[in-house]
Amino acid sequence: MAASVEPWQVLRSELVFNHPWYRLRRDHVRLPSGQELDDYFVSVRPEAVLTFCLTADEQVVMVRQYKHGAADIFVELPGGVIDADETDPRAAARRELLEETGYAADELELLCDVTDNPTKDTNRIYFFLARNARRVAAQDLDATENIEVLTVPLAELAQWVLGGRIRVAGSVALCLLALRKLGR
Amino acid sequence: MAASVEPWQVLRSELVFNHPWYRLRRDHVRLPSGQELDDYFVSVRPEAVLTFCLTADEQVVMVRQYKHGAADIFVELPGGVIDADETDPRAAARRELLEETGYAADELELLCDVTDNPTKDTNRIYFFLARNARRVAAQDLDATENIEVLTVPLAELAQWVLGGRIRVAGSVALCLLALRKLGR
Repeated sequence: MAASVEPWQVLRSELVFNHPWYRLRRDHVRLPSGQELDDYFVSVRPEAVLTFCLTADEQVVMVRQYKHGAADIFVELPGGVIDADETDPRAAARRELLEETGYAADELELLCDVTDNPTKDTNRIYFFLARNARRVAAQDLDATENIEVLTVPLAELAQWVLGGRIRVAGSVALCLLALRKLGR
Repeated sequence: MAASVEPWQVLRSELVFNHPWYRLRRDHVRLPSGQELDDYFVSVRPEAVLTFCLTADEQVVMVRQYKHGAADIFVELPGGVIDADETDPRAAARRELLEETGYAADELELLCDVTDNPTKDTNRIYFFLARNARRVAAQDLDATENIEVLTVPLAELAQWVLGGRIRVAGSVALCLLALRKLGR
């Protein structure tokens, strides 16, 4: 019979790469079997947020931008990382939504949190649903950002996702979660 | 008016960390605006596969294991990375499915490919749908792996996802994509 699934124990840990834009940790771990691994690498990443933002006239607010890791242009839901001085994921979601798109909503409902790659990454991504959103400001972007805002009719969103136009796992997940939640 | 969204240009590139289990690349890039950044870090990761595996009696095959990056136990769809000597994502999906769960299917349909984190990671994840799967073998695990196989009735899967029991973005995305594809 298989052993029960249990956490590993960390015996030692060190940052092998420590730069403001990337932190890589090497853990010496002991598995439940007793086996030890001295080179388990973990990417230490900040927590993140992602928001399904729906306007009163049933438009979904999305962003289109170049992403250099995958070296391609992607359509995604608005979101980003939680700043070091931010404690509330909801406040971070509001801030990112406003900066990237100029949209705001009265209430952001937390649907769930997920991780992109639990094998290699430390961070969680908090999924929010914002309804009755409205455009209240211009974009407020960093000098390195160039983000196109687009709105997709809610009635067309499933076809955007199923047709492969949204190619980021988190955005596919949150779009389909929100559609179920909204009964669509 | 905003500039059009365009790719960045890579002026120089070097591996700053190069280990069999982790490769980190530093790019010196030029943005479409002309601005240059000399410290854009990219995690070079192998392509991956994930499979929604449905049996003839409408059970979805899932795996439960400890993942050390996020340091928690997760329920996910079966999958893994494409080996360096594998060229066909479908073959890799078959291999991972068989190794992790002992299940096989006659046909694996490619639904789409996504990326987990296009800002930081290079890799794609190929999503497959396998129908009429059956258990044909015992698990074939690495010494460091301890994977519990579970089957979830298709009729209950939406509630598993919406109830927050599946907390990995790719698995949430593929579960909901497959449910739509299957008309459920």
